[in-house]
Amino acid sequence: MKEWDSFDQIKSAKGVWLVDSKGNKILDAVGSMWCNVWGHSNPELINAITTQSKKLQHSSMFNLTNEPAEKLAEYLVKISPKMNKVFYSDNGSSAMEIAIKLALQYWKNIGEKNKTRIATLENGYHGDTFGAMSVGYVPEFFGKFKKQLFTTLQFPVPNKYRIPKEFSFLDYQNQCIEKIEKEFSQKNNIAAFIMESGAQVAGGVIIYPKDFQRKISVLCKKYNVLFVLDEIATGFGRLGSMFQYEEQKSIPDIVAYGKMLTGGYLTLAATLANKKVYDSFLGEFNDWKHLFHGHTYTGNPIASSVALENLKMYKKYNLIKKIQKTSKVFEQHYQRISEIDIVGDIRHKGMLMGIELVSNKRKKTPITTKKSINKIFFEEGKKNGIYLRTLGNIVMLVPPLVITESELNLLLERTISTIESAKSKII
Amino acid sequence: MKEWDSFDQIKSAKGVWLVDSKGNKILDAVGSMWCNVWGHSNPELINAITTQSKKLQHSSMFNLTNEPAEKLAEYLVKISPKMNKVFYSDNGSSAMEIAIKLALQYWKNIGEKNKTRIATLENGYHGDTFGAMSVGYVPEFFGKFKKQLFTTLQFPVPNKYRIPKEFSFLDYQNQCIEKIEKEFSQKNNIAAFIMESGAQVAGGVIIYPKDFQRKISVLCKKYNVLFVLDEIATGFGRLGSMFQYEEQKSIPDIVAYGKMLTGGYLTLAATLANKKVYDSFLGEFNDWKHLFHGHTYTGNPIASSVALENLKMYKKYNLIKKIQKTSKVFEQHYQRISEIDIVGDIRHKGMLMGIELVSNKRKKTPITTKKSINKIFFEEGKKNGIYLRTLGNIVMLVPPLVITESELNLLLERTISTIESAKSKII
Repeated sequence: MKEWDSFDQIKSAKGVWLVDSKGNKILDAVGSMWCNVWGHSNPELINAITTQSKKLQHSSMFNLTNEPAEKLAEYLVKISPKMNKVFYSDNGSSAMEIAIKLALQYWKNIGEKNKTRIATLENGYHGDTFGAMSVGYVPEFFGKFKKQLFTTLQFPVPNKYRIPKEFSFLDYQNQCIEKIEKEFSQKNNIAAFIMESGAQVAGGVIIYPKDFQRKISVLCKKYNVLFVLDEIATGFGRLGSMFQYEEQKSIPDIVAYGKMLTGGYLTLAATLANKKVYDSFLGEFNDWKHLFHGHTYTGNPIASSVALENLKMYKKYNLIKKIQKTSKVFEQHYQRISEIDIVGDIRHKGMLMGIELVSNKRKKTPITTKKSINKIFFEEGKKNGIYLRTLGNIVMLVPPLVITESELNLLLERTISTIESAKSKII
Repeated sequence: MKEWDSFDQIKSAKGVWLVDSKGNKILDAVGSMWCNVWGHSNPELINAITTQSKKLQHSSMFNLTNEPAEKLAEYLVKISPKMNKVFYSDNGSSAMEIAIKLALQYWKNIGEKNKTRIATLENGYHGDTFGAMSVGYVPEFFGKFKKQLFTTLQFPVPNKYRIPKEFSFLDYQNQCIEKIEKEFSQKNNIAAFIMESGAQVAGGVIIYPKDFQRKISVLCKKYNVLFVLDEIATGFGRLGSMFQYEEQKSIPDIVAYGKMLTGGYLTLAATLANKKVYDSFLGEFNDWKHLFHGHTYTGNPIASSVALENLKMYKKYNLIKKIQKTSKVFEQHYQRISEIDIVGDIRHKGMLMGIELVSNKRKKTPITTKKSINKIFFEEGKKNGIYLRTLGNIVMLVPPLVITESELNLLLERTISTIESAKSKII
């Protein structure tokens, strides 16, 4: 952390622009950590917050309920195909912890004591708490806590840019799926398969090839394994559709939402379950089938109000259609970005782009630096008027979903300039 | 869960009163899950939310900072003796996960690879995520996830009401401390001792005897073990002082805050560390000493604003002194409560009371029921105009800290009536 000796202080923000304490305006290429939908200071969302704040700030979901939390749950169930009930929490990590607990306890509740193992994909990421670190185990991030994490069955994910030598991409995809089927057919102790929906984002924007996710969902059904999806970073339009699981034709038993759920203004997350999972938790008190999980601010009325307003605006302003159109602007810059000599690969879907930096294009050697790449790009980005973050050697573009075509053009131009000017600091 | 087939919907609230959709007013004896400070709809807190909402709703703490988050961190460090830096998160569970990660990684950062075990108290509770469940392992709550939890060294906690037969209370306390010292002196792999500060709350209001916590802190220092405190439910006035660790004369290396931090309006939590712990995380990027943990909404400006306003109001209105005075009202009702034939024990400190229900006073047999005790008390409480919750066989009184003497008298009267009327449903 030592290299971060001072921080710019953001004082206000409007649309895609952040304003720091010196009055500098920078374009929010990170979507304030991948969650901003309508830009900053949207009057409808502000109004949802202030109106609810004057009415009921918080009331507990222990034994009681409140109007915004109920309405939001109803709306989430209505728009989420095949989902039946909503369990609230306060951040994506917690939503995934709940998903894991639901999946493990489901089998106990129906009397299958043997099903206790979790299957996952290599390179996945589901958050920073111990359960989330276990199912999204990235050695570089979480190696220091390995002793405290539970083990999972990890399966390879097909990354088109780094296919093992002997394979075509299609052959490799088939091999990945076959590996899963082989384990599923031999083991009867697998409780759930947990994966990000549509793409691995923190893992470096690994967009799944068509049918990969669907095939896993089919295997889960065939071998009686719960299918659990993490749509926290990928759903709600980030990858160009409302729910990735719908686009991927892969209905989960449990799905987690977060980030864009409130439009990017207040923290709130939700774990949804289908009827089969929910019903397994019903019993008389002394059956002890209920889930022991409940955070203090679960179903907070203010956060629920702004989330409900946000989701209604998706429909009102036809946001998904707009994203699909604006997203094409990225494509117009593929050529120029890929021509930069340190750019090895461009991966893009919807409102997400990952630009992989390499020191050798032919060998695809990931760039390494003494100072963190993130710090270098953040500083160079700032000079170019954008707030940029990298994840390892991947430059991430994750703008507010509502970004206009001209703003996106500007962002991409500035990103190209930033990569060009960062080059000399890196090599 | 089956017995909970319908829920009352809270529509608005003012002061200590919740108002449901039918217009019923009930007294919030639960403090909306132990977090409410100034009552509901406090105009100063609402103003903090609405003012900040119009300025900056959210900006990421990844590479950047924002004014309310910085000001709050400065204020927290200022009022928390010996604490040096603040790490934000979104709920108490996450704050404890961060505390655990800080403690484990501290030893790796300074090159002590052997220190990987966590010591805790039996019957402790630190939240519902996997790390928090591991350090606060309650078998009845979390037995279904045991296989996925890491193990800790658990030490007994002296509960005055249930001292083993052969002991005086003082002898038993000494034995508890001796057990800890014995393990500490024999093992050199203990990274940290983690405990709730002042009392175990979810464990049934087990208030530590004088010097118990201080003696553990002394042992931690003597045997080079980090001392980690959870003040989420017990700090900020709940037990009658601003910080329990100050009252208990037991300075921690790491401490977690939550619940009352925002006055009970929005979710926010914080993990504070002293300089020794913080400095161990400083290094060049390639030293990999930094902590991999960061939630999307970390340091949210709206939540930080209301938290800062809340904390300033503690000083402005001399809240701690007021609590100490109001708290005496509980004492005036000890006699009458303890005379009820199903009441075995009363445990009270500050603005927290636990009333333990037994079926046999002499044998101290915990009451058991077919329907959950919580459900019975919730329904009977409602008839008496209070929102009540029990934890197992303990009736919990955790009102908003600002409750007046006459409101508290009313609450206690109604609690007595509720226990009396619930009796027939229980036995």
